[in-house]
Amino acid sequence: MPEENVNMGSSSKILLQISVAVTSIWSVGVPLHHQVWYWDMKLPVKLLKQDVTWIIKKGDIVSVPFNVACGRCKMCQRQDTHICLNVNPERPGGAYGYVDMGGWVGGQSEYVMVPYADFQLLKFPDKEKAMEKILDLTMLSDIFPTGYHGAISAGVTTGSTVYVAGAGPVGLAAAHSAQLLGAAVVIVGDLKEERLKQARSFGCETINLQEHDDVGEQIEEILGVPEVDCAIDAVGFEAYGHGTDHEDAPAAVLNTMMDVVEAGGKYGIPGLYVTEDPGAKDKDAKQGSLKVRFGLGWSKAHSFSTGQTPAMKYQRQLMMAILNGKADIANVVNATVISLDEAPEGYADFDSGAAKKFVIDPHGTLSK
Amino acid sequence: MPEENVNMGSSSKILLQISVAVTSIWSVGVPLHHQVWYWDMKLPVKLLKQDVTWIIKKGDIVSVPFNVACGRCKMCQRQDTHICLNVNPERPGGAYGYVDMGGWVGGQSEYVMVPYADFQLLKFPDKEKAMEKILDLTMLSDIFPTGYHGAISAGVTTGSTVYVAGAGPVGLAAAHSAQLLGAAVVIVGDLKEERLKQARSFGCETINLQEHDDVGEQIEEILGVPEVDCAIDAVGFEAYGHGTDHEDAPAAVLNTMMDVVEAGGKYGIPGLYVTEDPGAKDKDAKQGSLKVRFGLGWSKAHSFSTGQTPAMKYQRQLMMAILNGKADIANVVNATVISLDEAPEGYADFDSGAAKKFVIDPHGTLSK
Amino acid sequence: MPEENVNMGSSSKILLQISVAVTSIWSVGVPLHHQVWYWDMKLPVKLLKQDVTWIIKKGDIVSVPFNVACGRCKMCQRQDTHICLNVNPERPGGAYGYVDMGGWVGGQSEYVMVPYADFQLLKFPDKEKAMEKILDLTMLSDIFPTGYHGAISAGVTTGSTVYVAGAGPVGLAAAHSAQLLGAAVVIVGDLKEERLKQARSFGCETINLQEHDDVGEQIEEILGVPEVDCAIDAVGFEAYGHGTDHEDAPAAVLNTMMDVVEAGGKYGIPGLYVTEDPGAKDKDAKQGSLKVRFGLGWSKAHSFSTGQTPAMKYQRQLMMAILNGKADIANVVNATVISLDEAPEGYADFDSGAAKKFVIDPHGTLSK
Amino acid sequence: MPEENVNMGSSSKILLQISVAVTSIWSVGVPLHHQVWYWDMKLPVKLLKQDVTWIIKKGDIVSVPFNVACGRCKMCQRQDTHICLNVNPERPGGAYGYVDMGGWVGGQSEYVMVPYADFQLLKFPDKEKAMEKILDLTMLSDIFPTGYHGAISAGVTTGSTVYVAGAGPVGLAAAHSAQLLGAAVVIVGDLKEERLKQARSFGCETINLQEHDDVGEQIEEILGVPEVDCAIDAVGFEAYGHGTDHEDAPAAVLNTMMDVVEAGGKYGIPGLYVTEDPGAKDKDAKQGSLKVRFGLGWSKAHSFSTGQTPAMKYQRQLMMAILNGKADIANVVNATVISLDEAPEGYADFDSGAAKKFVIDPHGTLSK
Repeated sequence: MPEENVNMGSSSKILLQISVAVTSIWSVGVPLHHQVWYWDMKLPVKLLKQDVTWIIKKGDIVSVPFNVACGRCKMCQRQDTHICLNVNPERPGGAYGYVDMGGWVGGQSEYVMVPYADFQLLKFPDKEKAMEKILDLTMLSDIFPTGYHGAISAGVTTGSTVYVAGAGPVGLAAAHSAQLLGAAVVIVGDLKEERLKQARSFGCETINLQEHDDVGEQIEEILGVPEVDCAIDAVGFEAYGHGTDHEDAPAAVLNTMMDVVEAGGKYGIPGLYVTEDPGAKDKDAKQGSLKVRFGLGWSKAHSFSTGQTPAMKYQRQLMMAILNGKADIANVVNATVISLDEAPEGYADFDSGAAKKFVIDPHGTLSK
Repeated sequence: MPEENVNMGSSSKILLQISVAVTSIWSVGVPLHHQVWYWDMKLPVKLLKQDVTWIIKKGDIVSVPFNVACGRCKMCQRQDTHICLNVNPERPGGAYGYVDMGGWVGGQSEYVMVPYADFQLLKFPDKEKAMEKILDLTMLSDIFPTGYHGAISAGVTTGSTVYVAGAGPVGLAAAHSAQLLGAAVVIVGDLKEERLKQARSFGCETINLQEHDDVGEQIEEILGVPEVDCAIDAVGFEAYGHGTDHEDAPAAVLNTMMDVVEAGGKYGIPGLYVTEDPGAKDKDAKQGSLKVRFGLGWSKAHSFSTGQTPAMKYQRQLMMAILNGKADIANVVNATVISLDEAPEGYADFDSGAAKKFVIDPHGTLSK
Repeated sequence: MPEENVNMGSSSKILLQISVAVTSIWSVGVPLHHQVWYWDMKLPVKLLKQDVTWIIKKGDIVSVPFNVACGRCKMCQRQDTHICLNVNPERPGGAYGYVDMGGWVGGQSEYVMVPYADFQLLKFPDKEKAMEKILDLTMLSDIFPTGYHGAISAGVTTGSTVYVAGAGPVGLAAAHSAQLLGAAVVIVGDLKEERLKQARSFGCETINLQEHDDVGEQIEEILGVPEVDCAIDAVGFEAYGHGTDHEDAPAAVLNTMMDVVEAGGKYGIPGLYVTEDPGAKDKDAKQGSLKVRFGLGWSKAHSFSTGQTPAMKYQRQLMMAILNGKADIANVVNATVISLDEAPEGYADFDSGAAKKFVIDPHGTLSK
Repeated sequence: MPEENVNMGSSSKILLQISVAVTSIWSVGVPLHHQVWYWDMKLPVKLLKQDVTWIIKKGDIVSVPFNVACGRCKMCQRQDTHICLNVNPERPGGAYGYVDMGGWVGGQSEYVMVPYADFQLLKFPDKEKAMEKILDLTMLSDIFPTGYHGAISAGVTTGSTVYVAGAGPVGLAAAHSAQLLGAAVVIVGDLKEERLKQARSFGCETINLQEHDDVGEQIEEILGVPEVDCAIDAVGFEAYGHGTDHEDAPAAVLNTMMDVVEAGGKYGIPGLYVTEDPGAKDKDAKQGSLKVRFGLGWSKAHSFSTGQTPAMKYQRQLMMAILNGKADIANVVNATVISLDEAPEGYADFDSGAAKKFVIDPHGTLSK
């Protein structure tokens, strides 16, 4: 791999940078993100003079989180790698191949340079066992910790009743995470029946928002009470209103959560809200300003937790859950392996709302 | 005291109700709240057949939290007395003399009935020592735990830099609470110089929002950086915009906090946001809907904690701080003792924004 | 039921006392504890003048925690009902039918008086559904929250590896609780093969301590590393040493945990340690003094959490887990229903170490 | 400085190593530890090819924690730098100049090599302001975070009553930390009147253990009740029994804490307990085995938190407290500046129990 392929966003600050061959790669939304990589000694590692074999050796299989993070700033030191101060000149937090997240090149390729590789790599303890679960482990870099963070920050615990808004990959991962955290009942709402079917396939209750405009009423049919303990917004600003007349309503999910979460409850909000949305109809929405029924949430003493996930914070424990058969995340998000050539088609399908998570496998590793 | 004076809101559910003579009483905002009471055995306690002297005896001095709470529901059992399920037919949470909070009669009188008295009373361990600090202890029922909850839920800890929006009694109590929690710097913003002077009197930095419209710039002058670790909204929906042209802007404080709190920070929001505001100009504001720059907060991974304080959760530890000279809350909020007859005048002063906390002393206890 | 049957330990302090018919009842160790009760209006409730139907009505099915707790002291107010200050003149904390725990009469009978019933009852939301799961719900008053508290205080979370010392009912409940909290692997150690078989029946790994004296070695065979993330002591002071020569060694479990828990780990210690053990051989053990390899734990920065469980803190969420099919606690502890007459035989079996949890069913409710 | 002076303990794993000139240095116990250093560009930094000025520049003043920590292992990634897995072949956790902690050379010299300098340095934001508080900032590397960790892990918060065993530097730092966390009353116990006088100098209550053998009785005289909320063991295994007949009694402090901490309380245990003590009289003590009245702690549902402090976790917030005048740690521990030549004398004084904290100043920085 030519050295000019290296990410240059903040490269002058990088102490250790490692080229890895991409084993598998996958999409979360607009851009694709890469995930499970190995270090090929044939690649140039000219930057290194010191011994790094205590961190990574030829042939190791590792996971790389989607958050680019330096490991030295105060945020990284307290596990908040999603808001690293050194990887994005515009704002805290960087990511591969993401708008506005530091200009790091995406991983839809055969090889990728990983900056801060001494800090960011998660090495799988047993290569053979890792390969058996590689499709699940591929979910560690982004979608699984994103869903898990949503569930954790919503306060899901043993016996919780949870509403998850959205049955796309983030919503499905959040729903499965809520199950792992012991939720008594997980209810997923979406406009598309195909996605809801996917949610039911692993034990969730569902609400078709195309057919029903009163989420509380539907929750009552399921639980006997019109409220849940907590909620996860896996939709974000691209929300539509409920019911048959579903117009663009960027605060629709937030306002629904205020309605259906019981007093004292929390929301985890992994769904993206943008600071600016030039394509929005509404002048307020253009400025990222939403009409939120804040007084309703306040009167119920609700708490909100927003933002991207610090994937590194969760990746080790989620890896342990996968390796020991406790998490079934690839099936949950309907992981579908494609080749690098098929990527454009994968994107198109994703954009049309297919209930699939496309995983790019540039070296044919998964089909071997 | 005639028995018909009893609060009737939910009285059929009350197991123990005790008449107390009002020692002192004080205002938080629109209505006045009562606070430190004692139980006078001359008063009728006909409802009781059992021995309650293990809870309260004649002559004990007690504090009563402003949240009416049953002590038996799941919320009370987990210390969330601010959202008790049994004291307000309209919604979770009750309070004395408050709009929409269960219809409980306010405490601006010589005697008051306390429902759920077996659960709600905080007995001061030493009567004599309590009388020495009675003006500070009066703040335990409402303003001190309200400010403290704001600071706790903003995550204030040793070394924090904190922005407090509003220098009314809630803001001042929040600022002092932040100091008790170890804040390195507390910065208070308000439109009135008289209130800011009060904030400076106990060591806060201040920003006059009438003179400056860029809070971040002012913070930078104080701290060297334009952001704080966390913030407390002690204003609520009655916010004005900053600068000289300060029009009514109900989301002004929320949007400022998103701007000046660093990534990963939290806000505590004790300031009131209403579900409906019939007097608002704006149609959205009438429905309690605010234009919040939610995308900005999301991009910084902020967390929000809203609602009233569960006063009982904090009252014992704050009492210990007062009795041992660690908290100076009466001076902080500029407590000013008045008689029951002077109450209307006190209200008028409060409404005009006086930097005072009026404490009604119906029996002349404080002037003895 | 004659009124003189009422528990008199601290009865002068009781505001509401309710007679309940015992639906099912069960043993935890030396004494039997009662559990799921209903309120029969034929029983005398003369103490009551007020309306209590908002708390309990004729025919309701409720759970009563084994901790007797007043609901008014500072401990109860912060959910620490296991150390209530008003129910035991000797020390904090009371329990039914337990040595040294306040003299409250045990529940091995047809009817029992519940003190502080207004505070302590957990009402099941749907009577019919409750009866379908009544054997599991019976475990809510003691064994399930005891095991759960052990797992919670050991810090078990998604992906944890956990060692549980002891496969008696507490150990089995702790192991199942660890699974509910997301443990990747749960390893149970015991001296009896029959008990270990029970642990394997719901997916635990096991170590027979009769056959192996190096727990770390056995853990390494299972996990690939000789340490676990955290541990639960479900044995207490009645521990035996490991290996074939298992003499009485009251600190054996504590010392093993220090050995096999990785640095930074926690232990939950629900297993009973006594303040005095007059029957002990050792003079130190008689005084409840153990020889603990404290330096080993210190060098690994371990944390210990001890004591009984505050059952009320957990009962509602565990009830939700049971009612929604997420917890299988009756099977886990091998619940075995017996009549009141068979109780002495049940005790004898329990004392001999049978891998069974006996549930007394005095009214034949469970066999209907 | 010759390169062979470099610490070699684990140097093959070090990516960035920086030579720093020692500004000040100080003692914690047996060995001396270094603390505030600056990076002098005249020193050889041959290992570096990359730009590190985003981490440290010539002339920066930094703090270095006493815990040597790699920044890449799972422990460092979760802020547990006290149990780093890569800096000590014997066990988790390394330190400079400490027995059994990885063989890293101590800092009692003019220049020191800092391994993992990219991860470990805390840069002071303003050089001039830092020099004004340099004696306080010197305490950031060890004694202040050690005391603070003790107070944090004991659960000290607003209004707590706290017992601190030991008035040596760790105990004094713990007592001051408890004050910063809002303690209502801090009570320090020691055998030496001179040390207790130091504790009283910043507002602590004291108990002379030479004169009194019943700590609970003394606590009752101060508080009115014989128990505190929580306790900090700043003594460790070198404890003496209380009273006039004070023999060596390694579990004396632990047993006292079980006695005087109220039910539900926690202890922070920064005081050192060794895995082996070859010099002990007692055979058990030789093996680091203590006779602990564990049953007493269990019956009160106590929790224990042990081990060294992760200094990096706390250093930034404590720096903020110092720079903004909230912490007075140098005065609290009676910091006394000496030259490098006076170090042997300083050690001798420390060993004799002088109520002083010696700070070595090899370049005369503090006296300029």
